[in-house]
Amino acid sequence: MGLIVQKYGGSSVRDAERVNNVASRIVEAYDEGNDVIVVVSAQGDTTDDLIEKAQEINPNASKREMDMLLSSGEQISVALLAMAIERIGRPVVSLTGWQAGFSTDTNYSAARIKKIKTERLQNELDKRRIVIVAGFQGVNKYDDITTLGRGGSDTSAVAIAASLGADVCEIYTDVDGVYTADPRFVKNAKKLDDISYDEMLELASLGANVLHNRSVEMAKKYHVKLAVKSSLEKVEGTYVKEVNQVEKMLVRGVTRDNDCARVALVGVEDTPGKAFSVFSLLSKKNIGVDLIIQSIGRDGKKDISFTVTEGDLPAVLDIFEANRDTIKADKIDYSKDVSKVSIVGAGMVNNAGVATTMFEALYNANININMIATSEIKISVLVEQKDAERAVVAIHDKFLHN
Amino acid sequence: MGLIVQKYGGSSVRDAERVNNVASRIVEAYDEGNDVIVVVSAQGDTTDDLIEKAQEINPNASKREMDMLLSSGEQISVALLAMAIERIGRPVVSLTGWQAGFSTDTNYSAARIKKIKTERLQNELDKRRIVIVAGFQGVNKYDDITTLGRGGSDTSAVAIAASLGADVCEIYTDVDGVYTADPRFVKNAKKLDDISYDEMLELASLGANVLHNRSVEMAKKYHVKLAVKSSLEKVEGTYVKEVNQVEKMLVRGVTRDNDCARVALVGVEDTPGKAFSVFSLLSKKNIGVDLIIQSIGRDGKKDISFTVTEGDLPAVLDIFEANRDTIKADKIDYSKDVSKVSIVGAGMVNNAGVATTMFEALYNANININMIATSEIKISVLVEQKDAERAVVAIHDKFLHN
Repeated sequence: MGLIVQKYGGSSVRDAERVNNVASRIVEAYDEGNDVIVVVSAQGDTTDDLIEKAQEINPNASKREMDMLLSSGEQISVALLAMAIERIGRPVVSLTGWQAGFSTDTNYSAARIKKIKTERLQNELDKRRIVIVAGFQGVNKYDDITTLGRGGSDTSAVAIAASLGADVCEIYTDVDGVYTADPRFVKNAKKLDDISYDEMLELASLGANVLHNRSVEMAKKYHVKLAVKSSLEKVEGTYVKEVNQVEKMLVRGVTRDNDCARVALVGVEDTPGKAFSVFSLLSKKNIGVDLIIQSIGRDGKKDISFTVTEGDLPAVLDIFEANRDTIKADKIDYSKDVSKVSIVGAGMVNNAGVATTMFEALYNANININMIATSEIKISVLVEQKDAERAVVAIHDKFLHN
Repeated sequence: MGLIVQKYGGSSVRDAERVNNVASRIVEAYDEGNDVIVVVSAQGDTTDDLIEKAQEINPNASKREMDMLLSSGEQISVALLAMAIERIGRPVVSLTGWQAGFSTDTNYSAARIKKIKTERLQNELDKRRIVIVAGFQGVNKYDDITTLGRGGSDTSAVAIAASLGADVCEIYTDVDGVYTADPRFVKNAKKLDDISYDEMLELASLGANVLHNRSVEMAKKYHVKLAVKSSLEKVEGTYVKEVNQVEKMLVRGVTRDNDCARVALVGVEDTPGKAFSVFSLLSKKNIGVDLIIQSIGRDGKKDISFTVTEGDLPAVLDIFEANRDTIKADKIDYSKDVSKVSIVGAGMVNNAGVATTMFEALYNANININMIATSEIKISVLVEQKDAERAVVAIHDKFLHN
């Protein structure tokens, strides 16, 4: 018995049947004697439908009005979920972001939570009510509604768990936990019982798509124990928390990220500050760069290669075109048919053999490596997109099949 | 130049085209130098769609959660309308009920406005912004969202006009004003330039359906000048205000109301307090009774007849069934195939000939009168529903055809 924060995404509440299913899950936790706060996203396609309505009227609508519009989606889902719990006969109350005390900055559509005024939440818990909170939204100092941007509802849930010192923050999704690889194409992928915050952060940023990084970072900062669980099946999920026995399993997971594009500046001048001038052009436009490789200079020239998300590729090419005279490359080369394949594990840093084993697995599978990058807890390689699934399977077999 | 409050109903903003149309109307008033506050209802069928969603999950959802749900409808429409005005390039801001300062009582789904805290509205006007306010909603002392019930958006608009001393409150609807009779079947019906609050009150309650009584009552109390206008065509509408020259036109309008049912308690005991005991049963269940007729007693028995809305009829019959022993009627008779036809005019009270002329018109048209009721400014008769349109035409011809 304690305080549980649960979070359900849009697909978990997309129709009446699923809403009722989620409601009985919640009531179960409540009937066990727990205080329960639930954060919900907008139903299924609601947000997309609202965006479409807005586009039709004004494709350049202000972010302030977009937030006003989109926040209605969660208001609908919290009310419906509360109604489903009323039908089961438990005391319940739904709250919008402002009612739940979410104060944010004024950065519409990507607001940061500044503080949660917990009085109302605490009062409702004291009345032994189940509290259903609209995720993804808050209110700024002007009393205007803001939304938190991508991963917002996960972040709302973790923020509540942190503010009220919840025992656990359960994130319910379509999958039933974090796996050593994507179980859709890696047959012997195994579900992890637990994983550290840092490992989860790398997995999320590498395309595992279970939790948004922002929420994991917040959970790490405030020591919130996260649980990734299935909203459909009743099985144990994966806990994200401080994990000490790092030697237990060296490699924790193998991931693939298709959402990347490779750009190469071939034959740029080999002078100091060249890389800085190139990447500052991109950072000024808020374009994040991932793997970076610079060749060793030869004949006063070198090559600079890096990856960006596919969505950013057109902007990158535009910027380079506009700054042709600064960059002075012989050729600008790019490809979207690439994937990033990575292994993640907190124990890797001290074990030189891991990278070798990974490359060996790829060699045996006859897969060519485009680029390589390593960090303390991950090793990533860029391969042709058509080879990516085979690469994951080969690496997974080598490290995790037993 | 001054302060104009405009109100647009759900059909006026039902799709992108209409939203854009309304936006240019608003901008026109603004560009003439006026301060403009606009109250909007939820788009088209939004409210009905939301009610359907709720019904599917819980047909007995609490009113508190229904208000949470339904208030999202206006939040969507204000944001969309603000976006349309942004596209035209005028400064604009949308506000929910709580942002606009609407404090209500705690009577969910039929809340009364207690006060409008006008600071935010005034601040926005001071910045020369067009202000778009979500109608139909407010917030109570618990910081919970309430809705105002039927006619709520009209009431929201009049309340703002009253609080800020607006020069006029323009109610935009599908019709272009208040007519002497329904122009759909009375060909020579005429649009009235102006009408008094009291006359409008009677017309509204008699089924003219242009303005909700609650808003007219509030307008009367706070001397808010109302204008009923078309949201589709640009023509002069009808002003609702204090009208002095009551002798100008004796009968102001002829209306018909099909939403009524006749109930007759035949052969109840002719004892003191009988009517009281019958009607207190109904008022306890919040059932409003309209025309009432009690026959003169004979042989210790009498008949009591009255009308209710069709929607209330099943409840009335249930109540009488459950209290059979108290009522002791020989027979309970009822019919839904009746209509109430009425004439309204502030000058009628002192002119005995008006009723006679009305009855003569019906006699000439060979229409039988079921029940009759009179007040200071109206005379109503109950007729068979099939005769109602003919009755309106006959009476209109007699009084208003010239």
